[in-house]
Amino acid sequence: MALTLDTFNAAAPAEALRLLDGLYEHSPWVVERALARRPFASLAALKWALVQSVAGATREEQLALIRAHPELAGKAMVANTLTTESTGEQSRAGLTHCSPEEFAALQQLNADYNARFGFPFILAVRGPRGSGLTRQQIIATFQRRLHNPVDFEREEALRNIHRIAEIRLADKFGAEPVLGHHVWDWHDSLAQHSDPGFKEQGQLTVTYLTDAHQACQKELTARMRECGFDEVSIDAVGNVVGVYHGATPDAKRLLTGSHFDTVRNGGRYDGRLGIFAPLACVQRLRQAGRRLPFGIEVVAFSEEEGQRYKATFLGSGALTGDFNPAWLEQTDADGIAMREAMRAAGLPGTLDAIDALRRDPARYLGFVEVHIEQGPVLNEMGLPLAVVTSINAGVRHVGEVIGMASHAGTTPMDRRRDAACAVAELALYMERRAAQDGDSVATIGLLNVPGGSINVVPGRCQFSLDLRAPNDDQRDALERDVLAELSAICERRGLGQRLERTMAASAAPSHPAWQTRWEQAVAALGLPVHRMPSGAGHDAMKLHEVMPQAMLFVRGENSGISHNPLESSTSDDIELCVRAFEHLLNQLAVDPL
Amino acid sequence: MALTLDTFNAAAPAEALRLLDGLYEHSPWVVERALARRPFASLAALKWALVQSVAGATREEQLALIRAHPELAGKAMVANTLTTESTGEQSRAGLTHCSPEEFAALQQLNADYNARFGFPFILAVRGPRGSGLTRQQIIATFQRRLHNPVDFEREEALRNIHRIAEIRLADKFGAEPVLGHHVWDWHDSLAQHSDPGFKEQGQLTVTYLTDAHQACQKELTARMRECGFDEVSIDAVGNVVGVYHGATPDAKRLLTGSHFDTVRNGGRYDGRLGIFAPLACVQRLRQAGRRLPFGIEVVAFSEEEGQRYKATFLGSGALTGDFNPAWLEQTDADGIAMREAMRAAGLPGTLDAIDALRRDPARYLGFVEVHIEQGPVLNEMGLPLAVVTSINAGVRHVGEVIGMASHAGTTPMDRRRDAACAVAELALYMERRAAQDGDSVATIGLLNVPGGSINVVPGRCQFSLDLRAPNDDQRDALERDVLAELSAICERRGLGQRLERTMAASAAPSHPAWQTRWEQAVAALGLPVHRMPSGAGHDAMKLHEVMPQAMLFVRGENSGISHNPLESSTSDDIELCVRAFEHLLNQLAVDPL
Repeated sequence: MALTLDTFNAAAPAEALRLLDGLYEHSPWVVERALARRPFASLAALKWALVQSVAGATREEQLALIRAHPELAGKAMVANTLTTESTGEQSRAGLTHCSPEEFAALQQLNADYNARFGFPFILAVRGPRGSGLTRQQIIATFQRRLHNPVDFEREEALRNIHRIAEIRLADKFGAEPVLGHHVWDWHDSLAQHSDPGFKEQGQLTVTYLTDAHQACQKELTARMRECGFDEVSIDAVGNVVGVYHGATPDAKRLLTGSHFDTVRNGGRYDGRLGIFAPLACVQRLRQAGRRLPFGIEVVAFSEEEGQRYKATFLGSGALTGDFNPAWLEQTDADGIAMREAMRAAGLPGTLDAIDALRRDPARYLGFVEVHIEQGPVLNEMGLPLAVVTSINAGVRHVGEVIGMASHAGTTPMDRRRDAACAVAELALYMERRAAQDGDSVATIGLLNVPGGSINVVPGRCQFSLDLRAPNDDQRDALERDVLAELSAICERRGLGQRLERTMAASAAPSHPAWQTRWEQAVAALGLPVHRMPSGAGHDAMKLHEVMPQAMLFVRGENSGISHNPLESSTSDDIELCVRAFEHLLNQLAVDPL
Repeated sequence: MALTLDTFNAAAPAEALRLLDGLYEHSPWVVERALARRPFASLAALKWALVQSVAGATREEQLALIRAHPELAGKAMVANTLTTESTGEQSRAGLTHCSPEEFAALQQLNADYNARFGFPFILAVRGPRGSGLTRQQIIATFQRRLHNPVDFEREEALRNIHRIAEIRLADKFGAEPVLGHHVWDWHDSLAQHSDPGFKEQGQLTVTYLTDAHQACQKELTARMRECGFDEVSIDAVGNVVGVYHGATPDAKRLLTGSHFDTVRNGGRYDGRLGIFAPLACVQRLRQAGRRLPFGIEVVAFSEEEGQRYKATFLGSGALTGDFNPAWLEQTDADGIAMREAMRAAGLPGTLDAIDALRRDPARYLGFVEVHIEQGPVLNEMGLPLAVVTSINAGVRHVGEVIGMASHAGTTPMDRRRDAACAVAELALYMERRAAQDGDSVATIGLLNVPGGSINVVPGRCQFSLDLRAPNDDQRDALERDVLAELSAICERRGLGQRLERTMAASAAPSHPAWQTRWEQAVAALGLPVHRMPSGAGHDAMKLHEVMPQAMLFVRGENSGISHNPLESSTSDDIELCVRAFEHLLNQLAVDPL
């Protein structure tokens, strides 16, 4: 019979330790130090205590924990001296059935990895859904991680150890994240649709109104119907809209959703998690035959990434009346105007139809959005969820510093007017200045010496500035300081400069009452409430213009990498996010504002 | 009657001041302070004293000197209140005959310039040969200089003031640099030949064995014959070789020369000055019917710049037996193999013929080369000549830093692995480290974030290193420190790197006895001896492998810019360089080693 949390909470320390025996390979101290934090309100709370136990250990203890693990397909596997847990895991991953070539490759990787890092390669070979990674996936991950810096890889090893423990815990407590698996499968299925040229390479790319995009609309429509939405439709900009009525069809609605288009070769959770999480909630409401005092309107936004046309937030912008009429005439790389693309996809392609999509804020309670973090914070903390305090304000510039190109051999150091060194100085200033704020970021993403030669002192250096902060004042101060520093550098070095401000977006602070609802939902799961700004823009920024909004972030695996096929989540985290959403709905039902 | 230097040296101070009245516009103090340095051995010595007079003045006095000058085509010209000297100069430049459009353009430029710098635009409107700049050239220079930094432009104004004084001095002393004009005209004539596509745009480009290159060979052959060389021929790699016999045809020879090919859109003095200076000397020997105890062999090297084929120093390399047989099969951008190009130009195109060019060092006294500095040092010092101590050792690397591309909005500053910031740190370190040595230089000439986006933290940054120092040990220490710093930066920031060493050239220190000969020649002209390393490579580097060598540098105008159409020299400097060469020949005749 599976262990229960009540049993574990009530057990004497020695017994509690025995109950979780084998959770951390040959390292009972990890559980032992977490016992003082009992009782745990949830498995999530227990996992967090275990993360803290390891984070609080010494560097030597952490390394000992890592070194207590066997090599993948290593000597211990061959000699049959693995722990029961490791045996099962390595066997399920097919490592006991390697071809001779695969086995040789793994032995070489083990040797190289150990030589570089001084500890064995640790990988949770059961994948994000709990099912096994293939041998090919394991070898590819091994090869990729071999190039990581040592500090980073030590943390990555500990993260994998916690992930292994999470899966072992689910076994012990008979607590498979069934709901999470379910929603994970929805992502898996939707990711089958990809634009030509990408699909063939196994890459995910869904841009506005392509065949793959329309296939997604179709699948989302079917999924909403299957979940039991009362009304499902595709609107004039291609959004898929599902409505689950409240107690009465004219009850006010909670608006939620996110986008299903992707960047080129993107990830499968970006946007889509914010569609599927509320779908799962509605499915459970329907299964329970429940109606809430308010309706739930889920919008799967057709476009957010601005990939096919130079028009971002097209899907959510249409709901706020922010659709630029000139966009209809804009053409894509193949010369197809947006209006044509709309008509080819069966949409009216008229401004009237699009204008009609504008929502009356009086009919809505507010807007909430769930999104994968797209950053490393939660992954590094070992926390599955965070509450967003604000979508950051941002400003962008592109420009160049103009110096004097001269001979790299004959121009003495004190007589140079090197444009690249000036930008180098600026880059390092930006690092320091943004770090001062703690929550500002400053990036030079574009950097180039045009027509440069190895033996010519750079006469020009082109660069970009991307500056973001949680509120407009902080962003403005950052921008002021960076531009002043650039002027000072150029003045001191005798250089010219020109900058063009290409974008400025105001911050979208979360509505306090709605932010509190997310905080309560996270706390109810037994998790600490971590608050953080969103560095990336989201559909919630658009809705912010017309109604209160607040967002929930879900941890991304692989250091939170996004806009990349390595973007990943787990069934466990997805389940927590659905439960948090459900909590928010239930609270809103009893305390509707 | 023209003033003589003896008269000036002997005059009482007040009289001496009167003799040079009007030399510096409304600023007699410049001459006054130089008087203490009398007697002057030469006009060049007087000019140097005047340069020092201004250099030693206060910033306020310098600005007052600049402000004492009239605007070009300004109010004073219109109102007829210019000094006699300025009237003549502005009139000869045709400024009194501007079209209404030109006049309006100049008024606007005067206003813009004065607003930016706080002093009037000063330009020596009599050109490098002493003849006038055109109105179009004046306006183009005005427009270009408007963008200079203030400090730089103040110095540029003072340089132009000295140049104006130099021309006024020549008038007063009846001392036109006739020989310099003569050699200047040879450069002018040779610059008529330019490769297709460049000639049409008025640009100078002469690459290996093109029609323009062959036209140069023809003109150089004729010029050598006209100067009275005993033997003139074109050798198997296209060098034009002229021999002026010594007392007997089998006397040992002094080898000298430089290259006549150019970079794309290059300058007309680079290389060619080192051919024409000895030609002028031989012409004067022949006119005087003189034979020296040694022969003079001038080689106009056909190729140094490596523009058409990836083979540099081909002309001088052939003399040292350093011709790579594989080069014959190398093809240019149009697919023409070097062997074909040679045959089309009437050369044998065989290795045997090329091998036969190798010189027997025992037959030569040594190699000397005159070259335009290609750097800003002499121009800034106000000195026409310098003696080269060494051709710098150099080493080049290309490579990249590898970090982790991540979202510019969501990746906190303390969690980034920004490849560009690491290279920025390296660039600033290189500036400091090279400056420590005083005479080392370090350059990042190539700099690029490949596939960068404005909103992505750079995951890769490609760059080059060009490190040079006057000797191999200093170069090696510089390289060691730079590479160690790169490793330290990458280690600290958790980044990877890869570097490829693409070039390493040993230093070519001047032979002490030959360097002394150049020093004596410079001193004999009444000039201070300034010694400096050559940051650029020269044909002398190749000859260094087989015989003693030493070089003389001639100041370049426009901050010494080279590999650029703005590369320039003056008849006055060219004349000094020919006189220095002549002095070296005469000294060698009486003290042949």
